[in-house]
Amino acid sequence: MRLAKIRGTVVSTCKEPSLQGVKFLLVQFLSESGEPLPDYEVAADVVGAGTGEWVLISRGSGARQHDGYQSRPVDATVVAIVDTVSADTGLRYSKKDDFH
Amino acid sequence: MRLAKIRGTVVSTCKEPSLQGVKFLLVQFLSESGEPLPDYEVAADVVGAGTGEWVLISRGSGARQHDGYQSRPVDATVVAIVDTVSADTGLRYSKKDDFH
Amino acid sequence: MRLAKIRGTVVSTCKEPSLQGVKFLLVQFLSESGEPLPDYEVAADVVGAGTGEWVLISRGSGARQHDGYQSRPVDATVVAIVDTVSADTGLRYSKKDDFH
Amino acid sequence: MRLAKIRGTVVSTCKEPSLQGVKFLLVQFLSESGEPLPDYEVAADVVGAGTGEWVLISRGSGARQHDGYQSRPVDATVVAIVDTVSADTGLRYSKKDDFH
Amino acid sequence: MRLAKIRGTVVSTCKEPSLQGVKFLLVQFLSESGEPLPDYEVAADVVGAGTGEWVLISRGSGARQHDGYQSRPVDATVVAIVDTVSADTGLRYSKKDDFH
Repeated sequence: MRLAKIRGTVVSTCKEPSLQGVKFLLVQFLSESGEPLPDYEVAADVVGAGTGEWVLISRGSGARQHDGYQSRPVDATVVAIVDTVSADTGLRYSKKDDFH
Repeated sequence: MRLAKIRGTVVSTCKEPSLQGVKFLLVQFLSESGEPLPDYEVAADVVGAGTGEWVLISRGSGARQHDGYQSRPVDATVVAIVDTVSADTGLRYSKKDDFH
Repeated sequence: MRLAKIRGTVVSTCKEPSLQGVKFLLVQFLSESGEPLPDYEVAADVVGAGTGEWVLISRGSGARQHDGYQSRPVDATVVAIVDTVSADTGLRYSKKDDFH
Repeated sequence: MRLAKIRGTVVSTCKEPSLQGVKFLLVQFLSESGEPLPDYEVAADVVGAGTGEWVLISRGSGARQHDGYQSRPVDATVVAIVDTVSADTGLRYSKKDDFH
Repeated sequence: MRLAKIRGTVVSTCKEPSLQGVKFLLVQFLSESGEPLPDYEVAADVVGAGTGEWVLISRGSGARQHDGYQSRPVDATVVAIVDTVSADTGLRYSKKDDFH
């Protein structure tokens, strides 16, 4: 999975029928240390993530391992909202500090 | 999924038999802010997208999650026509404004 | 799918048993405008493509969506020979012109 | 698989339900000669790897080939702890020497 | 598939149980013309390849299309030992010449 930050939303009326009801979020990938990277993804949201939150993105067939998503044409999904990222050099990110 | 813009079409007479009837579109990937990227893809179209429209491309096995596509050798499909892209900094793209 | 040009062949005697009878082509990826890219692939051929022809390459599990290929360890296949590539700026490639 | 080094952990309370009980490790990819690369991954751990250890990361659907992981939305998993890496030029890495 | 050269071996005692008995080879990817690339992979071996040999690497789910490998967490496998690579410009590689 990759670390990313929720940046916005993508809206589509005309889409593959099974995508009805799927929420599309614009997410920007983050480096290991939290710097925004040029890469982004439009990901389905199954955890109710909000703008600015750090999340984990699962891609490929992993993005469809969720009830009701097995046959939807998605290749990226927000699967977790990150609380903390800790490394050998100490705490790198804490949602509590970021959103206080 | 990735944001892309429809640039053209690819025609093939001699192809894997199950690809009969599949429309191939030439799509150019866009950066998060809408700039054209050097990367492109030839994608199957299941939503009837037209030249210049912004779309979402699903790749890998996700590209085959559509009625009748499960056993076709495609690895990229246009799965949605984008209406709007909104970010924390405001509206980034609106089809209505782009095509008025 | 990606645009590529047939450059040559790869021959192997000692291989995974199910690869017997699979023809391996050396293909060079092309940019959207037809320039050769540094990336290449060794792809199985299911359409009888010849040297110099422009083709479409399907990668990943898409490369095995062909009768008798479902259980073969291939991750790239030539799935179509390209007749024309047309973009908003006009005809970019025509097999007829290329091979006359 | 790719060589990587365990750098830390990622904690998430709000996540896709089937991810309960999955341990997320922050892993940094290594070059063939053991230099840290800028790329990282957040990987599920099924072997009990510890900080600083060299491991093998399997990505894509390969990351879910483990009892109970088939339907979890993970796309990267720590599948082995590396003892030694040997090349034609000699021993490149030995866990015993690294952790003595 | 990609061209690669066998460079060495990776040994692991503590690993996902189904990986018992799998031989891990360190392989270095080659450019189309045979130059070593910075990218490498640790690949399972199902053909008995030896150091210095040119091989074909299949990645993703293609790497598990071999008897007994369907449920093993591998994402790269050596599936063929290359005899020759021929291009429109002539013979690029011949195992016979390389190992005489």
